Amino acid sequence: MAEPADPPAAADVPVVRVGLLGCGNVGAALVGLVERRAAAIAGRSGVRLEVSRIAVRSLTRDRGVEVADGVLTRDAAAVAVDPEVDLVVEVIGGIEPARELTLAALAAGKPVVSANKELLANHGGELATAAEAAGVDLLFEAAVAGGIPIIRPLRESLAGEDIDRVMGIVNGTTNFILTRMTEEGADYADALAEAQGLGYAERDPTADVEGYDAGAKAAIIASLAFGQRVVAGDVYHEGIAGLTAADIDSATRLGHVIKLLAVCERVDGPDGPEVAVRVHPAMVPLQHPLAGVRDSFNAVFVEGAAVGDLMFYGRGAGGDPTASAVLGDVVDAAVNLRKGTFATVGIEGRARIRAIDEQRSPFYVSIDVEDRPGVLRSIAEVFERNQVSIRSLEQDGAGSDARIVLITHTAREADLQATVSELRDLPAVHRVGSVVRVVGDEG
Amino acid sequence: MAEPADPPAAADVPVVRVGLLGCGNVGAALVGLVERRAAAIAGRSGVRLEVSRIAVRSLTRDRGVEVADGVLTRDAAAVAVDPEVDLVVEVIGGIEPARELTLAALAAGKPVVSANKELLANHGGELATAAEAAGVDLLFEAAVAGGIPIIRPLRESLAGEDIDRVMGIVNGTTNFILTRMTEEGADYADALAEAQGLGYAERDPTADVEGYDAGAKAAIIASLAFGQRVVAGDVYHEGIAGLTAADIDSATRLGHVIKLLAVCERVDGPDGPEVAVRVHPAMVPLQHPLAGVRDSFNAVFVEGAAVGDLMFYGRGAGGDPTASAVLGDVVDAAVNLRKGTFATVGIEGRARIRAIDEQRSPFYVSIDVEDRPGVLRSIAEVFERNQVSIRSLEQDGAGSDARIVLITHTAREADLQATVSELRDLPAVHRVGSVVRVVGDEG
Repeated sequence: MAEPADPPAAADVPVVRVGLLGCGNVGAALVGLVERRAAAIAGRSGVRLEVSRIAVRSLTRDRGVEVADGVLTRDAAAVAVDPEVDLVVEVIGGIEPARELTLAALAAGKPVVSANKELLANHGGELATAAEAAGVDLLFEAAVAGGIPIIRPLRESLAGEDIDRVMGIVNGTTNFILTRMTEEGADYADALAEAQGLGYAERDPTADVEGYDAGAKAAIIASLAFGQRVVAGDVYHEGIAGLTAADIDSATRLGHVIKLLAVCERVDGPDGPEVAVRVHPAMVPLQHPLAGVRDSFNAVFVEGAAVGDLMFYGRGAGGDPTASAVLGDVVDAAVNLRKGTFATVGIEGRARIRAIDEQRSPFYVSIDVEDRPGVLRSIAEVFERNQVSIRSLEQDGAGSDARIVLITHTAREADLQATVSELRDLPAVHRVGSVVRVVGDEG
Repeated sequence: MAEPADPPAAADVPVVRVGLLGCGNVGAALVGLVERRAAAIAGRSGVRLEVSRIAVRSLTRDRGVEVADGVLTRDAAAVAVDPEVDLVVEVIGGIEPARELTLAALAAGKPVVSANKELLANHGGELATAAEAAGVDLLFEAAVAGGIPIIRPLRESLAGEDIDRVMGIVNGTTNFILTRMTEEGADYADALAEAQGLGYAERDPTADVEGYDAGAKAAIIASLAFGQRVVAGDVYHEGIAGLTAADIDSATRLGHVIKLLAVCERVDGPDGPEVAVRVHPAMVPLQHPLAGVRDSFNAVFVEGAAVGDLMFYGRGAGGDPTASAVLGDVVDAAVNLRKGTFATVGIEGRARIRAIDEQRSPFYVSIDVEDRPGVLRSIAEVFERNQVSIRSLEQDGAGSDARIVLITHTAREADLQATVSELRDLPAVHRVGSVVRVVGDEG
């Protein structure tokens, strides 16, 4: 809708000057948003935002935003500590120089708003300590699931909640690819090519399709959900490149849909609570709210002891949605700065991480077999020997072309892997196909 | 999962004493939650919560919670201003005495956390002014959609966002009834009886089924989304009691599902922005995220100019989920109290309300007709004369038993009502059945 004309700044509304580090998609969208929304924000929050410095790599590139003379600079280090900057927004991405710039800004007493998942997932503890020492905010809503408010609800709304598990569709590229494979029968390569054509996937799609991007977000979510630090390296991940049209078909026939999920669980360990955190394709039952999250949308599903099931859904990427999340943090940090207060993160120490071998879930397994007398019994024996219990099983085809598709009850990863390895040695087994974890209807 | 044993309170963690007004479902759940979670909260937030006073109507009723001697009292007014109480939680419900008690607590410098939609929707402005004058928090996450974090995201995460529309399924009772009607072909009376049997609906279901409950929540949502005060009396509402199995059938055939929606829109008026806010049954296309919100679950769908579409989903009622939302607010208010700060609501003045006659949406209309030559033309003429354009139309049956079902393009309410009234005068029209607004695929 049309914006009302910007009224003249009220003389008594203090200005908070924002220094922007980086001006790509998100940065440029933020500059535009601040310009359009500054008056409305001043009215509601009592601070008037002004982007006073922008550090960029190239002074000549057209970003589609208009800025006053002298605002653009190539000297990011100077912006981070500029006395004329009250608050710093970091949207450079990557670890260095973003880390050094963020630390410098915090040390100079400036609140920092970051959209940088990689930095937060690898150095979040160091940055939080620096922010607390300086007595300023370090906010990062935009680092996970773009425009969806999930960091603030985890930090604040659910502050009293005992969270059991968080599952997220937090990578839009892979969700787009899987949606195309499910709804149009596309194979993986074609769906990936379509995603690349639309600009959803990079030319080198590794970070998305192998689960690294989702893994960094999982580390941040797990840290906040469970109050103990989890870093990117703690997260087990498996990508979607191995999924076939046949797997998608099987999922559909079984009343499921395959999604790339980030799964963060709190589990009881021998020496106290542990955190299990992993990214992998998962079979989600059609009636589960996550199953309806299509195309490049993201969603985070939270299971709490008191609150029950919650889901947060929206755009996980894109300049405008991500800039909206950054702007919410900027307003919050600006108001806090004026009040001389700041938010604490509430993460105490490192989480004890459960090894992937010890994690548990039900599994979907497809096995290409020679259909001859006794084959089913020999397969069942392998599962039984490894203490993996079969919940349901069906056989397709006959003769040398048969395929057995089954779903297990909840089992240990290590037991399932041992099962698969023994299955491969059976003479009647041609091939063990995809192994996909099942969530949402654990039994 | 199992709770770790409560470690002894660290000597340096300050205690914040909570005075609880009311101890029904939500209050009792809160007492239990605080007991179980106090240690974890102290570790993460730096404050230890303690429920020190509880005002109840009956000292003898068993609430399933254990409290120390002297905690229970029948004197709510004394708890509200007790110097031994740092923070007040109001879960009495209704307007009086909740309003007076809340004002007394605020005047005594105590932050108040309220789960009281009726109070907030009718006297929110007065309470916010009192809280601001006292320099303390007035938080009310639990007043809308129970355990779902929606107030905080609207107030903080979306502080910079230009919100166009919010649509919510915010009444679990009616959503349960409509889900039964849709999925099991139940008629309204049977579905209502089932909801009453399960404790989802009151013996007198008026507040739920006529949309009063959803209307109060709509007023609160609209105030926060648009930054101007909307009160319960501003909300137009229509209930679900008139819906028939035939309407549900038609919706299904048209690829829609009927939900009771609270709709809050910002629209351009002749003298600046206006707020349109209403509660009514609505046809939602099956592929819309709100269509999948089943049973007694709630969801709030937010459409923002920059952030795009967001949805917040979860349990909208029940002791534990609601208490979880209250507890999140209590932790926030307790931390703020320790820091000597508080949150401002950011609502400026009264909203200009658009009259229902001037509101616009597409409509579904069913018309029982005598199928004879010219009937369709005469119906089409009525729509045309009233400037309501028909998007799609189908006729079922023949002879004296025919029914025409149609969906219009977006039209003014007043024009649609005039159309319906003229249709009733046509000799070939036996009856104009349900008129249901359509959302989510406006054209």
